[in-house]
Amino acid sequence: MTQLGKVHLIGAGPGDPELLTCKALRLLKEVDVVVYDRLVSPEIMALIPATTRLVAVGKEAGYHCVPQHRINEILVELASEGLRVARLKGGDPLIFGRGSEEAAELEASGIPYDYVPGITAAQGAASSTHVPLTHRGLATGVRYVTGHRAKDADLDLDWDSLTSPETTLVVYMGAANMVTISAELIARGLPASTPAMAIASATTPRERRVVGQLDTIAEAATGLKAPVLFFIGEVVSLYKAEEAHGLPVSDWLERHGLAAHA
Amino acid sequence: MTQLGKVHLIGAGPGDPELLTCKALRLLKEVDVVVYDRLVSPEIMALIPATTRLVAVGKEAGYHCVPQHRINEILVELASEGLRVARLKGGDPLIFGRGSEEAAELEASGIPYDYVPGITAAQGAASSTHVPLTHRGLATGVRYVTGHRAKDADLDLDWDSLTSPETTLVVYMGAANMVTISAELIARGLPASTPAMAIASATTPRERRVVGQLDTIAEAATGLKAPVLFFIGEVVSLYKAEEAHGLPVSDWLERHGLAAHA
Repeated sequence: MTQLGKVHLIGAGPGDPELLTCKALRLLKEVDVVVYDRLVSPEIMALIPATTRLVAVGKEAGYHCVPQHRINEILVELASEGLRVARLKGGDPLIFGRGSEEAAELEASGIPYDYVPGITAAQGAASSTHVPLTHRGLATGVRYVTGHRAKDADLDLDWDSLTSPETTLVVYMGAANMVTISAELIARGLPASTPAMAIASATTPRERRVVGQLDTIAEAATGLKAPVLFFIGEVVSLYKAEEAHGLPVSDWLERHGLAAHA
Repeated sequence: MTQLGKVHLIGAGPGDPELLTCKALRLLKEVDVVVYDRLVSPEIMALIPATTRLVAVGKEAGYHCVPQHRINEILVELASEGLRVARLKGGDPLIFGRGSEEAAELEASGIPYDYVPGITAAQGAASSTHVPLTHRGLATGVRYVTGHRAKDADLDLDWDSLTSPETTLVVYMGAANMVTISAELIARGLPASTPAMAIASATTPRERRVVGQLDTIAEAATGLKAPVLFFIGEVVSLYKAEEAHGLPVSDWLERHGLAAHA
């Protein structure tokens, strides 16, 4: 009987390969096979040794190349062959990463596994834009929600609890539904003038930002390419466009006559 | 005139030195001086070259060795001498890390700086306990709040918005006020039976966990040493004590006759 392998459910972080954890990088160089999503940046894929087997199970907003149940099967099959597997996901496997769903399947099949956390997109965007997730007097906490909805389903968000003015709200996968999300938040009492920012591909050379306010950010962000993250809250008032922080601020912003929120 | 140095505001992550980002590790080996908190684990401090100058500005719950305004001055002084400075903080500098307050001071003094994100404690605890922060059907989002309050001040939390049953609530620095926090959440409608977990020193050899429910977790956690993090939400129902995930489950748990939530 073949000895069982092991699956490492690894967060690839926001995109910048230097923002991988040391553990993630070590494992990517040690494993036999890497099962990866499209959300993992090409800069990170380039760190994987050329001899390592790669399995793409890419997901992109709108279509899923490989359905989740098949991804689960692939992981079980590979580990059952005795292979050490890295399951590489954008961000953190336990924040909107469905890592725990894959883990449940592995557990049911008796496959050993562990998790390696990754810098989640909100933290990557905060560090590169210099907009903090919490800040004394502006935000006493932070909240991550997903703006993605299953096909034909309504957005399942607890709207009333989302309008806490002292909490930074970060919306993942929200580009397609941001018009609805903004309107609902305003209807529940969050001021239309609440500072808001959209960031695409944070921490990569493709990073782009648009800054505005809650009632304008959905439209302003339509030119951005996925993945896009939205920050809503007073902390965005700390954003300073002129600094640019070593990354190009979107020329799209200028083209549309949008100024950074002062 | 001396050329200005630079300050890197660096997140040290939850404690496991392998959970530093590659960028943080590189900078810790490159800089002239490291200004660090007590929350940074000894395992991480051991990675800093022996020749690097160290400045302790440790903070611990209850007393601050060096007040924040003095920390700000120290950073400005060191960088003004032309030194490259790592300002090393537990977790992430932009999540309850006051990184943006130090940055504001640096900016006012014309000192160049940047941020390097770190795995925040909630992510470290999730990966090591195998309790996800989001999970289909159990939590559509996650929220981080601080349970710390300034001297003689009331806890300043937007209680009504904290009782969203489909959101995982993570309380940082809450050990001293957890009795109040639990009581307030229950008073606002969060069921007393909501699964809850307390984790001390996640991802380090000192990691300890206690699992219970909202109305018992404050008492159950009294034996844990700081830093302690609380998870409140249905995701905690996924915790499996028998696995232990490579780290010793607290004998304190057994001594007090507490069972893991099934």
